[in-house]
Amino acid sequence: MASSQTSLDQIKLAMASTNDLFHTEVVIRRNFAALDEVYTSDARILPPGAPMVSGREAIRQFWADLIQSANAKSAVLRSLDVLPAGEGVVEIGQAILSVAPAGEATQLEVKYVVFWRQENSRWKWHVDIWNPNA
Amino acid sequence: MASSQTSLDQIKLAMASTNDLFHTEVVIRRNFAALDEVYTSDARILPPGAPMVSGREAIRQFWADLIQSANAKSAVLRSLDVLPAGEGVVEIGQAILSVAPAGEATQLEVKYVVFWRQENSRWKWHVDIWNPNA
Repeated sequence: MASSQTSLDQIKLAMASTNDLFHTEVVIRRNFAALDEVYTSDARILPPGAPMVSGREAIRQFWADLIQSANAKSAVLRSLDVLPAGEGVVEIGQAILSVAPAGEATQLEVKYVVFWRQENSRWKWHVDIWNPNA
Repeated sequence: MASSQTSLDQIKLAMASTNDLFHTEVVIRRNFAALDEVYTSDARILPPGAPMVSGREAIRQFWADLIQSANAKSAVLRSLDVLPAGEGVVEIGQAILSVAPAGEATQLEVKYVVFWRQENSRWKWHVDIWNPNA
Protein backbone atom coordinates (compact mmCIF):
# COMPACT_ATOMS: atom_id res chain seq x y z
CA MET A 1 0.00 0.00 0.00
CA ALA A 2 2.69 2.48 1.03
CA SER A 3 4.77 1.84 -2.07
CA SER A 4 1.84 2.02 -4.49
CA GLN A 5 0.85 5.32 -2.86
CA THR A 6 4.40 6.60 -3.33
CA SER A 7 4.30 5.55 -6.94
CA LEU A 8 0.95 7.30 -7.53
CA ASP A 9 2.40 10.44 -5.92
CA GLN A 10 5.35 10.23 -8.31
CA ILE A 11 2.99 9.86 -11.25
CA LYS A 12 1.03 12.91 -10.05
CA LEU A 13 4.25 14.95 -10.01
CA ALA A 14 5.06 13.82 -13.55
CA MET A 15 1.51 14.69 -14.62
CA ALA A 16 1.80 18.17 -13.09
CA SER A 17 4.96 18.72 -15.12
CA THR A 18 3.18 17.79 -18.37
CA ASN A 19 0.16 19.94 -17.49
CA ASP A 20 2.49 22.83 -16.78
CA LEU A 21 4.22 22.32 -20.14
CA PHE A 22 0.86 22.72 -21.86
CA HIS A 23 0.17 25.91 -19.96
CA THR A 24 3.57 27.62 -20.22
CA GLU A 25 4.98 26.33 -23.52
CA VAL A 26 1.93 25.65 -25.66
CA VAL A 27 -0.57 28.28 -24.52
CA ILE A 28 1.60 31.13 -23.23
CA ARG A 29 4.66 30.78 -25.53
CA ARG A 30 2.69 29.27 -28.44
CA ASN A 31 5.44 26.70 -28.93
CA PHE A 32 3.22 24.10 -30.62
CA ALA A 33 6.12 21.66 -31.11
CA ALA A 34 5.96 21.14 -27.33
CA LEU A 35 2.65 19.32 -27.91
CA ASP A 36 4.75 16.26 -28.84
CA GLU A 37 5.78 16.14 -25.16
CA VAL A 38 2.20 16.57 -24.01
CA TYR A 39 0.37 14.04 -26.23
CA THR A 40 1.31 10.47 -27.13
CA SER A 41 2.05 9.85 -30.80
CA ASP A 42 -1.34 8.17 -31.35
CA ALA A 43 -3.35 10.40 -29.02
CA ARG A 44 -6.94 11.42 -29.68
CA ILE A 45 -8.75 14.54 -28.57
CA LEU A 46 -12.53 14.93 -28.47
CA PRO A 47 -13.27 18.67 -28.48
CA PRO A 48 -16.80 20.01 -27.98
CA GLY A 49 -18.47 21.19 -31.18
CA ALA A 50 -16.10 19.33 -33.51
CA PRO A 51 -15.33 15.75 -34.53
CA MET A 52 -12.59 13.68 -32.85
CA VAL A 53 -9.01 14.62 -33.83
CA SER A 54 -6.41 11.81 -34.11
CA GLY A 55 -2.64 11.85 -34.14
CA ARG A 56 0.14 14.35 -33.55
CA GLU A 57 -0.04 16.35 -36.76
CA ALA A 58 -3.79 16.94 -36.54
CA ILE A 59 -3.64 17.69 -32.81
CA ARG A 60 -0.88 20.28 -33.31
CA GLN A 61 -2.98 21.94 -36.03
CA PHE A 62 -6.08 21.89 -33.83
CA TRP A 63 -4.39 23.67 -30.92
CA ALA A 64 -2.50 26.13 -33.11
CA ASP A 65 -5.79 27.17 -34.74
CA LEU A 66 -7.77 27.31 -31.50
CA ILE A 67 -5.15 29.10 -29.37
CA GLN A 68 -4.54 31.70 -32.06
CA SER A 69 -8.18 32.29 -33.01
CA ALA A 70 -9.30 32.48 -29.36
CA ASN A 71 -6.23 34.56 -28.53
CA ALA A 72 -5.71 32.29 -25.50
CA LYS A 73 -3.61 33.77 -22.71
CA SER A 74 -3.47 30.94 -20.22
CA ALA A 75 -4.86 27.50 -19.39
CA VAL A 76 -4.62 26.61 -15.72
CA LEU A 77 -5.26 22.89 -15.21
CA ARG A 78 -6.22 21.42 -11.85
CA SER A 79 -6.51 17.69 -11.12
CA LEU A 80 -9.66 16.84 -9.18
CA ASP A 81 -9.04 13.09 -9.09
CA VAL A 82 -6.48 10.63 -10.42
CA LEU A 83 -7.60 7.00 -10.78
CA PRO A 84 -5.02 4.23 -11.35
CA ALA A 85 -5.78 2.39 -14.60
CA GLY A 86 -3.20 -0.33 -15.21
CA GLU A 87 -0.22 1.13 -17.00
CA GLY A 88 -2.09 4.41 -17.32
CA VAL A 89 -4.18 6.66 -15.11
CA VAL A 90 -7.51 8.41 -15.59
CA GLU A 91 -7.56 12.04 -14.51
CA ILE A 92 -10.67 14.13 -13.86
CA GLY A 93 -9.81 17.82 -13.90
CA GLN A 94 -10.86 21.38 -14.29
CA ALA A 95 -9.35 24.04 -16.54
CA ILE A 96 -9.66 27.79 -16.40
CA LEU A 97 -8.98 29.24 -19.84
CA SER A 98 -8.28 32.91 -20.31
CA VAL A 99 -9.04 34.06 -23.83
CA ALA A 100 -9.39 37.41 -25.57
CA PRO A 101 -10.85 36.66 -29.03
CA ALA A 102 -11.69 40.28 -29.90
CA GLY A 103 -9.26 41.89 -27.50
CA GLU A 104 -11.85 41.58 -24.69
CA ALA A 105 -10.52 39.21 -21.99
CA THR A 106 -12.85 36.51 -20.69
CA GLN A 107 -12.55 33.30 -18.68
CA LEU A 108 -13.99 29.92 -19.56
CA GLU A 109 -14.33 27.06 -17.12
CA VAL A 110 -14.18 23.56 -18.54
CA LYS A 111 -13.98 20.11 -17.01
CA TYR A 112 -12.05 17.27 -18.60
CA VAL A 113 -11.14 13.60 -18.49
CA VAL A 114 -7.69 12.53 -19.68
CA PHE A 115 -6.46 8.95 -20.04
CA TRP A 116 -2.71 9.18 -19.46
CA ARG A 117 -0.07 6.80 -20.77
CA GLN A 118 3.69 6.73 -20.50
CA GLU A 119 5.67 7.26 -23.71
CA ASN A 120 9.47 7.43 -23.67
CA SER A 121 9.27 7.57 -19.87
CA ARG A 122 7.18 10.74 -19.96
CA TRP A 123 3.53 10.80 -18.81
CA LYS A 124 1.36 12.09 -21.66
CA TRP A 125 -2.26 12.64 -22.66
CA HIS A 126 -3.48 9.66 -24.67
CA VAL A 127 -7.22 10.39 -24.77
CA ASP A 128 -8.37 13.94 -23.98
CA ILE A 129 -12.02 15.07 -23.80
CA TRP A 130 -13.55 18.16 -22.26
CA ASN A 131 -16.70 20.26 -22.19
CA PRO A 132 -17.82 23.62 -20.75
CA ASN A 133 -19.44 23.91 -17.32
CA ALA A 134 -21.98 26.43 -18.58
CA MET B 1 -1.80 -12.72 -26.41
CA ALA B 2 -4.60 -15.06 -27.49
CA SER B 3 -6.08 -15.29 -24.00
CA SER B 4 -5.88 -11.56 -23.31
CA GLN B 5 -7.62 -10.98 -26.65
CA THR B 6 -10.35 -13.44 -25.66
CA SER B 7 -10.74 -11.70 -22.37
CA LEU B 8 -11.01 -8.27 -24.04
CA ASP B 9 -13.65 -9.72 -26.38
CA GLN B 10 -15.57 -10.99 -23.37
CA ILE B 11 -15.36 -7.57 -21.75
CA LYS B 12 -16.66 -5.99 -24.95
CA LEU B 13 -19.68 -8.30 -24.88
CA ALA B 14 -20.35 -7.36 -21.25
CA MET B 15 -20.00 -3.68 -22.17
CA ALA B 16 -22.47 -4.05 -25.04
CA SER B 17 -24.98 -5.53 -22.61
CA THR B 18 -24.64 -2.54 -20.26
CA ASN B 19 -24.85 -0.06 -23.15
CA ASP B 20 -27.98 -1.84 -24.34
CA LEU B 21 -29.49 -1.63 -20.85
CA PHE B 22 -29.05 2.15 -20.94
CA HIS B 23 -30.75 2.31 -24.33
CA THR B 24 -33.68 -0.04 -23.76
CA GLU B 25 -34.38 0.24 -20.03
CA VAL B 26 -33.32 3.77 -19.13
CA VAL B 27 -34.07 5.76 -22.28
CA ILE B 28 -36.88 3.82 -23.97
CA ARG B 29 -38.69 2.40 -20.90
CA ARG B 30 -37.68 5.26 -18.57
CA ASN B 31 -36.86 2.74 -15.86
CA PHE B 32 -34.37 4.97 -14.02
CA ALA B 33 -33.71 2.35 -11.33
CA ALA B 34 -31.84 0.41 -14.04
CA LEU B 35 -29.15 3.12 -13.85
CA ASP B 36 -27.82 1.28 -10.79
CA GLU B 37 -26.82 -1.53 -13.20
CA VAL B 38 -25.26 0.97 -15.62
CA TYR B 39 -23.20 3.17 -13.25
CA THR B 40 -20.93 2.17 -10.34
CA SER B 41 -22.06 3.32 -6.91
CA ASP B 42 -19.44 6.12 -6.85
CA ALA B 43 -19.63 7.02 -10.55
CA ARG B 44 -19.23 10.54 -11.87
CA ILE B 45 -20.69 12.07 -15.00
CA LEU B 46 -19.41 15.25 -16.65
CA PRO B 47 -22.23 16.61 -18.84
CA PRO B 48 -21.70 19.53 -21.21
CA GLY B 49 -23.13 22.80 -19.95
CA ALA B 50 -23.41 21.69 -16.30
CA PRO B 51 -21.11 20.88 -13.38
CA MET B 52 -19.94 17.35 -12.61
CA VAL B 53 -22.55 15.02 -11.06
CA SER B 54 -21.37 12.49 -8.44
CA GLY B 55 -22.99 9.35 -7.07
CA ARG B 56 -26.01 7.21 -7.80
CA GLU B 57 -28.78 9.39 -6.43
CA ALA B 58 -27.63 12.52 -8.27
CA ILE B 59 -26.97 10.61 -11.48
CA ARG B 60 -30.45 9.07 -11.43
CA GLN B 61 -31.95 12.53 -10.94
CA PHE B 62 -29.82 13.97 -13.76
CA TRP B 63 -30.96 11.38 -16.32
CA ALA B 64 -34.58 11.42 -15.20
CA ASP B 65 -34.68 15.21 -15.68
CA LEU B 66 -32.80 15.19 -18.98
CA ILE B 67 -34.61 12.25 -20.61
CA GLN B 68 -38.01 13.63 -19.65
CA SER B 69 -37.33 17.27 -20.53
CA ALA B 70 -35.69 16.35 -23.86
CA ASN B 71 -38.41 13.75 -24.47
CA ALA B 72 -35.63 11.33 -25.46
CA LYS B 73 -36.74 8.41 -27.62
CA SER B 74 -33.51 6.46 -28.04
CA ALA B 75 -29.77 6.54 -27.41
CA VAL B 76 -27.80 4.28 -29.71
CA LEU B 77 -24.24 3.85 -28.41
CA ARG B 78 -21.40 2.63 -30.61
CA SER B 79 -17.90 1.78 -29.35
CA LEU B 80 -15.18 3.23 -31.55
CA ASP B 81 -12.28 1.97 -29.45
CA VAL B 82 -11.76 0.03 -26.22
CA LEU B 83 -8.41 0.47 -24.46
CA PRO B 84 -7.38 -1.90 -21.64
CA ALA B 85 -6.70 0.07 -18.45
CA GLY B 86 -5.73 -2.29 -15.63
CA GLU B 87 -8.85 -3.58 -13.93
CA GLY B 88 -10.91 -1.21 -16.05
CA VAL B 89 -11.12 -0.20 -19.69
CA VAL B 90 -11.36 3.16 -21.43
CA GLU B 91 -13.98 3.34 -24.18
CA ILE B 92 -14.20 5.98 -26.89
CA GLY B 93 -17.63 5.99 -28.45
CA GLN B 94 -20.33 7.74 -30.36
CA ALA B 95 -24.00 8.15 -29.45
CA ILE B 96 -26.94 9.05 -31.60
CA LEU B 97 -29.68 10.54 -29.45
CA SER B 98 -33.21 10.90 -30.74
CA VAL B 99 -35.13 13.56 -28.88
CA ALA B 100 -38.40 15.40 -29.40
CA PRO B 101 -38.44 18.25 -26.85
CA ALA B 102 -41.42 20.10 -28.36
CA GLY B 103 -42.90 17.13 -30.17
CA GLU B 104 -40.56 17.78 -33.13
CA ALA B 105 -38.13 14.83 -33.50
CA THR B 106 -34.46 15.59 -33.97
CA GLN B 107 -31.16 13.69 -33.75
CA LEU B 108 -28.06 14.71 -31.84
CA GLU B 109 -24.65 13.19 -32.37
CA VAL B 110 -22.32 13.13 -29.41
CA LYS B 111 -18.96 11.51 -28.72
CA TYR B 112 -17.98 10.19 -25.33
CA VAL B 113 -15.25 8.68 -23.19
CA VAL B 114 -16.21 6.21 -20.47
CA PHE B 115 -13.88 4.69 -17.89
CA TRP B 116 -15.41 1.31 -17.11
CA ARG B 117 -14.99 -0.69 -13.89
CA GLN B 118 -16.40 -3.96 -12.69
CA GLU B 119 -18.83 -3.86 -9.76
CA ASN B 120 -20.54 -7.02 -8.50
CA SER B 121 -19.16 -8.79 -11.59
CA ARG B 122 -21.00 -6.40 -13.92
CA TRP B 123 -19.11 -3.93 -16.17
CA LYS B 124 -20.33 -0.42 -15.42
CA TRP B 125 -19.65 3.23 -16.24
CA HIS B 126 -17.40 4.73 -13.58
CA VAL B 127 -16.47 8.04 -15.24
CA ASP B 128 -18.66 9.26 -18.10
CA ILE B 129 -18.04 12.43 -20.15
CA TRP B 130 -19.43 13.50 -23.50
CA ASN B 131 -19.84 16.48 -25.80
CA PRO B 132 -21.66 17.32 -29.04
CA ASN B 133 -19.98 16.96 -32.44
CA ALA B 134 -21.47 20.21 -33.69
